Amino acid sequence: MTAARPGRVLALSGGIGGAKLALGLSRVLPAEDLVVVANTGDDFRHLGLAISPDIDTLLYTLSGLADPVKGWGRRDETWSFMAALAGLGGETWFQLGDGDLALHVERTRRLAAGETLSEVVEAIRLRLGIGPKILPVTDDPVPTRIRTQDGWLDFQEYFVRLRCEPAVLGFAFSGAEVAQPQAEILPLLRDPGLRAVVICPSNPFISVDPILAVPGIRAAIAACAAPVVAVSPIIGGQAVKGPTAKMMRELDLPVGAAAVARHYDGLVDIFVSDQGDGAVALPPGMAGRQAKTLMTDLADRENLARVVLDAADAWSRSPHDPRGSPRGRSPRPTEHQ
Amino acid sequence: MTAARPGRVLALSGGIGGAKLALGLSRVLPAEDLVVVANTGDDFRHLGLAISPDIDTLLYTLSGLADPVKGWGRRDETWSFMAALAGLGGETWFQLGDGDLALHVERTRRLAAGETLSEVVEAIRLRLGIGPKILPVTDDPVPTRIRTQDGWLDFQEYFVRLRCEPAVLGFAFSGAEVAQPQAEILPLLRDPGLRAVVICPSNPFISVDPILAVPGIRAAIAACAAPVVAVSPIIGGQAVKGPTAKMMRELDLPVGAAAVARHYDGLVDIFVSDQGDGAVALPPGMAGRQAKTLMTDLADRENLARVVLDAADAWSRSPHDPRGSPRGRSPRPTEHQ
Repeated sequence: MTAARPGRVLALSGGIGGAKLALGLSRVLPAEDLVVVANTGDDFRHLGLAISPDIDTLLYTLSGLADPVKGWGRRDETWSFMAALAGLGGETWFQLGDGDLALHVERTRRLAAGETLSEVVEAIRLRLGIGPKILPVTDDPVPTRIRTQDGWLDFQEYFVRLRCEPAVLGFAFSGAEVAQPQAEILPLLRDPGLRAVVICPSNPFISVDPILAVPGIRAAIAACAAPVVAVSPIIGGQAVKGPTAKMMRELDLPVGAAAVARHYDGLVDIFVSDQGDGAVALPPGMAGRQAKTLMTDLADRENLARVVLDAADAWSRSPHDPRGSPRGRSPRPTEHQ
Repeated sequence: MTAARPGRVLALSGGIGGAKLALGLSRVLPAEDLVVVANTGDDFRHLGLAISPDIDTLLYTLSGLADPVKGWGRRDETWSFMAALAGLGGETWFQLGDGDLALHVERTRRLAAGETLSEVVEAIRLRLGIGPKILPVTDDPVPTRIRTQDGWLDFQEYFVRLRCEPAVLGFAFSGAEVAQPQAEILPLLRDPGLRAVVICPSNPFISVDPILAVPGIRAAIAACAAPVVAVSPIIGGQAVKGPTAKMMRELDLPVGAAAVARHYDGLVDIFVSDQGDGAVALPPGMAGRQAKTLMTDLADRENLARVVLDAADAWSRSPHDPRGSPRGRSPRPTEHQ
């Protein structure tokens, strides 16, 4: 009963913060037991190239190629392309490192040859020697759009070009209503042997919600047999990186872990918040867990991964009445009760 | 009578060797008096990118960005892209430097946005501060194909991937029969004030012939009022660079300047060969000039440019009967007789 529960773990991840926990999970789980579902709402075409920022951060992070300082892009990168492009009068607001370009050029070439995004990511994952699967949440375009007082903005226009400066009023995931979830995801969520679903400490609005917006994903998570664990991206009222806290203020939400937990009400069984935040008020039916959630080094990533898995396994072993859960899912299989 | 004749000079150029003389011409002529017509038979799509090797060599050479050792690509280049692409299992047989990539990405983007190749080259030329115009011989695709004993090969497959190893049996310029010459070229050739047409020391078969294969170009050169000067790419029975001499052997031509001159019979008035080759047997009606044609440094390039212009101007001043010329063109305007 105290041995780790077998079974696969499905992690939902955006970019840098999510990839840190995905890396931790990849180091404490057998490779075949981790599947990372990646946000594709940030994907866009730039200079004719198909760019998938969150997938790329996951590929680089899980292969050890990531820039350890920036968290995105490749380590030991050079920037001759950007300098030359500037010399040609090209668009330079989106930084593309020389080595990073290879991934965009190769992906664009493969997509043009008829491969799906999933096939491209799978080929590159294997080539880079990454054990866990990385699944784009969908192979269909679901570009995130940001509503601001000045109107709707494309995601990268808001995120990179305007450096998240405009106040956000809302979000849209264009095309999500007709997108097909990547073919492996729903069967995984229906698998009675699934060990846990982990919502990584990514931005709820622009990293996790676009994943949940793809038809079938949210319902399958709510209905799945395994515990759903979310890790707060907010520590001490601040985002570790990115605009999460700023967005919460602009959306008139109290900036804190509690509001993130409420955002996941009905979907999450266990909410992991930072130990420095003390007790967090959680929605009824959601269990709390405190941990060191700031992942500075590799040990932090592994430790947080272990906390998440331990919390999930404890939840699975404990008696609980899922019918009372705000997730509202059907009764759990007998062996888990 | 001894002052340099005014008027424009139109130079036909392939890559490295041609670009050297084009650079020399650009340094001894006012910028507005030089127009370089570039071979586009080498152009191809690679990794989804539109690549124009000869145009790029001209752009880099005339802007001072060229790698002075290799003669192609950019100086101070880095190679992170190729290394990363190899790591992804991509195609690495065609070398693309990091800075060089900017030109291919920017060109591909502009072409996809609806610009013609001429418009792209013009925009980049201006951006790089290059004075002389660089005109692709055509905006239509005219890909060179190489006939070998193993069948037809795409140009870059033969030239780069197979390192020119297969013996050549012939050449084809696909699509040339329906290509339109770039709009500025024929009016320039018809201009009675044209000072000279210069066939740069480029490979006759795969750099100059593709230019001449575009409908109207060869006839307009043969009919033009100005002298046509060709510079031998063969010195001492060897090509300075590239497969010219090897091709001549494979085509059962005697490897030497004389065979190059015969190749241009009917088109060229003055043939400039290397001073080390001594007297070269020339077709009837073709005048010879000897010079130092090996262009090692900038002074060599400028000196050869001066020799070419001087030979052209002397020809224009001298009495000659063009009706007896193997160029077979119509009588020259009176003021030139």
